[in-house]
Amino acid sequence: MAGEKALKVYLDLMSQPCRAVLIFLKTNKIPHTVETVALRKAQHKTPEFTKMNPMQKVPVMQHNGFVLTESDAILKYLATNFNVPEHWYPRHPERRAKVDEYTAWHHMNTRLDASRVFIYEVLMPRMTGQPTEPAKLEKALKELEKTLEKLESMFLRRQAFLCGDDITLADLLAICEVMQPLGAGRDVLKDRPRLQCWRSRVQSALKCSFDEAHNVLYRLRDKATAKL
Amino acid sequence: MAGEKALKVYLDLMSQPCRAVLIFLKTNKIPHTVETVALRKAQHKTPEFTKMNPMQKVPVMQHNGFVLTESDAILKYLATNFNVPEHWYPRHPERRAKVDEYTAWHHMNTRLDASRVFIYEVLMPRMTGQPTEPAKLEKALKELEKTLEKLESMFLRRQAFLCGDDITLADLLAICEVMQPLGAGRDVLKDRPRLQCWRSRVQSALKCSFDEAHNVLYRLRDKATAKL
Repeated sequence: MAGEKALKVYLDLMSQPCRAVLIFLKTNKIPHTVETVALRKAQHKTPEFTKMNPMQKVPVMQHNGFVLTESDAILKYLATNFNVPEHWYPRHPERRAKVDEYTAWHHMNTRLDASRVFIYEVLMPRMTGQPTEPAKLEKALKELEKTLEKLESMFLRRQAFLCGDDITLADLLAICEVMQPLGAGRDVLKDRPRLQCWRSRVQSALKCSFDEAHNVLYRLRDKATAKL
Repeated sequence: MAGEKALKVYLDLMSQPCRAVLIFLKTNKIPHTVETVALRKAQHKTPEFTKMNPMQKVPVMQHNGFVLTESDAILKYLATNFNVPEHWYPRHPERRAKVDEYTAWHHMNTRLDASRVFIYEVLMPRMTGQPTEPAKLEKALKELEKTLEKLESMFLRRQAFLCGDDITLADLLAICEVMQPLGAGRDVLKDRPRLQCWRSRVQSALKCSFDEAHNVLYRLRDKATAKL
């Protein structure tokens, strides 16, 4: 049965980790179907979705009946079980360990700090009808700067990509987070030439799948910029 | 040269992830040396340590010149490159993916919520000489309850361990976090029989390495309990 072996992903492209999963699938031409779960319509809280993922979060992957959550785990599963270039998640023990090191660090740093800025500038004002307290936003921006500084001075210190000379899952997860504040018209890399070069390298490695996945975010940016 | 192949870990046993690494090494009889990095003496901020790990955090692993940080990555590296029972980090794609799923979820949930309670009850009062604002602690405890609820109702719903019928790296990382509030005399599992059974199962799988690693925390608990 064709359906039995099918790969299905549940995504909302406003979510950073969902974009990472979609870009990976498209760049590597892995056959899949996408089911959109619109977070703003609370489609992640329906009984059907909750039955599949009690955490009520996206992305979710379903492969041959196997359900998996967490973008980090989904990307590693896809990289290991589908025919994709090895650079994404190297088999070499030390190189793989460096990817695991970044992806572990990512949660409480790149992801937490960049998404907090987006929440304060876009989501909370939209939900409450009020702009976020400037001091709170200022503090969040300072935290993000510390993390961007670490990305530049530690991870990218002597190499072109976060975990070596070629693109890995780490770069993919990181870039989708770093893009997110753009939804408020804010380019957090504008004074960071080293991270800008990294972004260009990542974007050219990902080709058009990068812009396709970010179109929703670009539209949000354009609206925000028009208002300024 | 014997030293060339040596495995060295830099630890402070007051740190939850450090305990996880030490327990793994001892339970699996992996030859190693331990270098203590006392956080309360700021030994993680010395120039020598900073040179090795610019993040100024423990644990750090050094294996044959290769330096690795992040307990999650260290444990996966050890499980993959040393001769240990397969149940820790199964090779089977779906079972491995479930361990990756938990370890990704862990950072912003079990780890964040349990360590925040410890910080509010032990570290901050010690640093400031003042108890933490009760409302703040109350909020942190509520967050932790939500996470414990998820551990019980989702991860342990139909199985003995977090990712299946046998102990994995996920259980090891989780138990070391869940133990931490004990430093203030607080057993966060006391009203949760399902998690208590899980803790017993994990403890008996780990044998005496569990208590050895937790001795420093037990002493802190005993002091806290004596004060009450």
